[in-house]
Amino acid sequence: MGDYQAPLREMRFLIEEIAGLREIRALSGCEEASEDVVAAILEEAAKFAREVLAPLNRVGDQTGCRLENGAVITPPGWQDAYRRFCESGWGGITAPVEYGGQGLPKALGVAVEEMWNAANMAFALCPMLTASAIDALRVAAAPEIQARYLPKMIAGTWTGTMNLTEPQAGSDLALIRTRAEPQSDGSYRIFGQKIFITYGEHDLAENIIHLVLARLPDAPPGVKGISLFLVPKFLVADDGSLGPKNDVRCVALEHKLGIHGSPTCTMAYGDAGGAVGYLLGEPHAGLKYMFIMMNAARHAVGVQGVAVAERAYQQALAYARERRQGRDLLSGEGPVPIVRHPDVQRMLMRIKSRTEAARALAYYASGLLDRARHHVDAAEREAALSLAELLIPLVKGGATEMSLEATSLALQVHGGMGYVEETGAAQHFRDARITTIYEGTTAIQANDLVGRKLMRDEGAMLLRLIGMIESTCRELGASTDANLAAIGAGLGQALGALRTASQWLRENWRNNPVVTFAGAVPFLELSSRVVGGWLLARAAQAAKRGHEESVEASHFHRAKIASARFYAEHVLPEAQALANAIVQAEAGSWMAYQEALGE
Amino acid sequence: MGDYQAPLREMRFLIEEIAGLREIRALSGCEEASEDVVAAILEEAAKFAREVLAPLNRVGDQTGCRLENGAVITPPGWQDAYRRFCESGWGGITAPVEYGGQGLPKALGVAVEEMWNAANMAFALCPMLTASAIDALRVAAAPEIQARYLPKMIAGTWTGTMNLTEPQAGSDLALIRTRAEPQSDGSYRIFGQKIFITYGEHDLAENIIHLVLARLPDAPPGVKGISLFLVPKFLVADDGSLGPKNDVRCVALEHKLGIHGSPTCTMAYGDAGGAVGYLLGEPHAGLKYMFIMMNAARHAVGVQGVAVAERAYQQALAYARERRQGRDLLSGEGPVPIVRHPDVQRMLMRIKSRTEAARALAYYASGLLDRARHHVDAAEREAALSLAELLIPLVKGGATEMSLEATSLALQVHGGMGYVEETGAAQHFRDARITTIYEGTTAIQANDLVGRKLMRDEGAMLLRLIGMIESTCRELGASTDANLAAIGAGLGQALGALRTASQWLRENWRNNPVVTFAGAVPFLELSSRVVGGWLLARAAQAAKRGHEESVEASHFHRAKIASARFYAEHVLPEAQALANAIVQAEAGSWMAYQEALGE
Repeated sequence: MGDYQAPLREMRFLIEEIAGLREIRALSGCEEASEDVVAAILEEAAKFAREVLAPLNRVGDQTGCRLENGAVITPPGWQDAYRRFCESGWGGITAPVEYGGQGLPKALGVAVEEMWNAANMAFALCPMLTASAIDALRVAAAPEIQARYLPKMIAGTWTGTMNLTEPQAGSDLALIRTRAEPQSDGSYRIFGQKIFITYGEHDLAENIIHLVLARLPDAPPGVKGISLFLVPKFLVADDGSLGPKNDVRCVALEHKLGIHGSPTCTMAYGDAGGAVGYLLGEPHAGLKYMFIMMNAARHAVGVQGVAVAERAYQQALAYARERRQGRDLLSGEGPVPIVRHPDVQRMLMRIKSRTEAARALAYYASGLLDRARHHVDAAEREAALSLAELLIPLVKGGATEMSLEATSLALQVHGGMGYVEETGAAQHFRDARITTIYEGTTAIQANDLVGRKLMRDEGAMLLRLIGMIESTCRELGASTDANLAAIGAGLGQALGALRTASQWLRENWRNNPVVTFAGAVPFLELSSRVVGGWLLARAAQAAKRGHEESVEASHFHRAKIASARFYAEHVLPEAQALANAIVQAEAGSWMAYQEALGE
Repeated sequence: MGDYQAPLREMRFLIEEIAGLREIRALSGCEEASEDVVAAILEEAAKFAREVLAPLNRVGDQTGCRLENGAVITPPGWQDAYRRFCESGWGGITAPVEYGGQGLPKALGVAVEEMWNAANMAFALCPMLTASAIDALRVAAAPEIQARYLPKMIAGTWTGTMNLTEPQAGSDLALIRTRAEPQSDGSYRIFGQKIFITYGEHDLAENIIHLVLARLPDAPPGVKGISLFLVPKFLVADDGSLGPKNDVRCVALEHKLGIHGSPTCTMAYGDAGGAVGYLLGEPHAGLKYMFIMMNAARHAVGVQGVAVAERAYQQALAYARERRQGRDLLSGEGPVPIVRHPDVQRMLMRIKSRTEAARALAYYASGLLDRARHHVDAAEREAALSLAELLIPLVKGGATEMSLEATSLALQVHGGMGYVEETGAAQHFRDARITTIYEGTTAIQANDLVGRKLMRDEGAMLLRLIGMIESTCRELGASTDANLAAIGAGLGQALGALRTASQWLRENWRNNPVVTFAGAVPFLELSSRVVGGWLLARAAQAAKRGHEESVEASHFHRAKIASARFYAEHVLPEAQALANAIVQAEAGSWMAYQEALGE
């Protein structure tokens, strides 16, 4: 119980059929990603996840981190695991070659990322945050700062953090108060308190590179007055060696519902005269840089949702195959393993198909991000980026909301044992619960989807996406295969609901913002269900035409078709309900709701 | 933060308008329940819940219970609270007058029960289990046993437990192995281990009366060979005084996800020669007695779902009114309390309307149980019982599944603060998670609904219920009020989905058990949504015609209509999706799912 086996066949299948490895390999800089290289890296990562990270997941939950005299002690075994993680070069597989990374495509990196998070989500947050900081430095930092910091961070010798939140400034970054005072040497002194800083302090690495949002003295109010600073835990000399400790410290750890192994720190900057910081990029442009790197960070949290759902699924399936209760409905024999009972099958198929849909969406978006970075044709790059940006809120919001249902159902499969902490199902349920909150709540994702991604092009990219789904529906409708036809019917109806809701939003968003944003989360849920169903349908088509070289391959292909059909009949019908909730909204009833809430 | 105020106006409104207090007061034995008495008891209970029980909820979670030398120590303050609970006579308000209870109707008792659970669910489990044991004794025990045990249990001086589960026998009681050996004095010696025994051992009461399922030596295999025994912690002499300690002890406490204040015990019977037990009722009839008392116990767990959802709602609403982030969509002013943001309103209205629907259903069923017990006309009693029995799985399964969504959304309203344990939102999320599992999982409720309640009369009672809902739809359709008309439209569509799914089940349950039971949980979710929506619609009708004696009453009535409309537009559309999942099931695809799960 509690083991983790990366779903390698599924991962390879999605990388090839959904992310489009063949096309990606043709992109400049991605030539290394041959099928063999991909397979070898996935095998190695699966081994590391299974043998090193997964066994530490429980101890991380039970022991948690502790703060002693400003130092954070991570759970037993984590230092050694992190050292091995760095030695194997796992921190840099998609990082740029010029700074010591391997430069492999994101379409491969996403699967590796999923494995770390499935094996040990609390551990995986450390490299995830470092990757975000690396992205920010690539976007905003001057070349000499990149040269000084990136190689160490890509190697994992130094880790990175993102410091946005303050007690009064959570979703609303306009309220940030941390300030930066310019010094004569061109550096700054940073003063302020940041909360909810993941791996803000720990004992895994030699240095910690904090990226901090703060205000310059002449900053305009609101979000247009926020600048981005680099604040190292230990100052770095010109030759790259470590100097004295900076004026930044961890003053408290949060006592959280889950991800206990990951220290969530309150960080105090400048209590002893000011923390030395360096401005990254232009003054007052901090939020712009954040938005650029946010795509990758939000995508990564979506992948966490997939990962924790997969882990919970594996544990629930193993339990359902082992636990014997009740009689077989048809044969009357018993007690039988509970996986033989229809409702247990329903729960497991719901987790499985929703996880696979969310995974397909995350991998598909990864493939788009590779094209957006590496395609020779600028128009192709732009189109890929535009579609990826539309899909990121669906990856983040959709996959994380899915993970809440998946981990809850997986606990339910265990019955009373699921409620006992030792079983481990409860940990996944608790761990998953953060994913819809951090890196922007689901509502923030939904507002980004409707208020930025749709409005900026009047829904043009969404219409193109709808067109692509429509063409898949036509293919499925023409199929003589009963499964593909049924999948096509479910997808077609759900697509109709998406079209209706999009049309309604377009008609309302200029003049009726309240009902538009009241429908934003339902629209995110609706569109992530439909796009996930579309990709599952395409996976079913690929499975249908796939060459079945073995009994195992044939079983895998049939299972992909079964997943798509279950999803079409159990999950896609929810699209219409979500669309109804959106299009029935009236400004008048919304005022009545506000009054009912006592406002 | 974290206070609890019982929603007294809502409770009185439902007791009067939905449970039907006027009619119930006309029943023999219920005459005491005047409007004044009801109001006074609700006020007193609300005070006790607010002042005594609610403040102990957090310490119960943080401290939990501990086992020392076989004794269980409850959290600080619980002994005193329990003493005061008994002194005020709260344990007996609906218990029979002949044993010292107050004999008040269940339509009132349900609201009081809700308050205990909202204030402190882990505490409330102790009287809840005692009430279940009392019910069992009333059903199965001989008069002299009733006379000896019931007064003490109704007074709360002694508490009760239900001992069903064993490590190998959870949902499947056929696998029970605990055995009972007859003695020459007519008593029995009990040997075996029971797990998950709520308040199996504690320091709140003078004695603990265990009701234990066990097998007699000549018992037939399976569920037809299970008998029910009474096993006291301390033996009770003929004069009612306490004798020596019995051979039963708590050997372990579970480390659970939630309800930490409630000890969940592993109980060992007969390690030192056999625990003295007394057979209740007929041999081998234990399961029959369980089924009779199960209605009340399952109803009680449904009420827990309502209660924890209400508590979580109150906390989320208070936070949303206090926390300031972001700007008002219309006026641009800011930062505003987050309750002004449409998506926060959507989440709060979803919790509020679903909680109110589940509450209406639970109170309505309570009124039916009063009629089933007290009506002078046998046919009326039978009809009321029959409808109540149909609704119990909806109360238990529907309200508890609702509580998972409600407590999760309430946590989400808090953003990052919701994930920090000190905030308290996470406790409700963890506490609620048990409710869909114990006293029969949601699947067990759904199988009871489809496999027993529907099949036994070929769906006749469901058709009568559908007829009642239809007649409300007609009234709403004829209304000139825009809100009532919109509510009627939503209810009518959802009712259509219920009718379609019921018809499909009737056509399949004889010949196609797999797809029938694969649809059982979706059918439970579908029918509880529709019946909840029906009762909210009736509440809206009552609010519309209500005499508005004050500004507050008028506000309350408008809020009831707003809840019903939100529910009609956001929750009822899910009925069609659930019906689709049911009617699209095919035996062939279900075989493919089984294969996809590796079976």
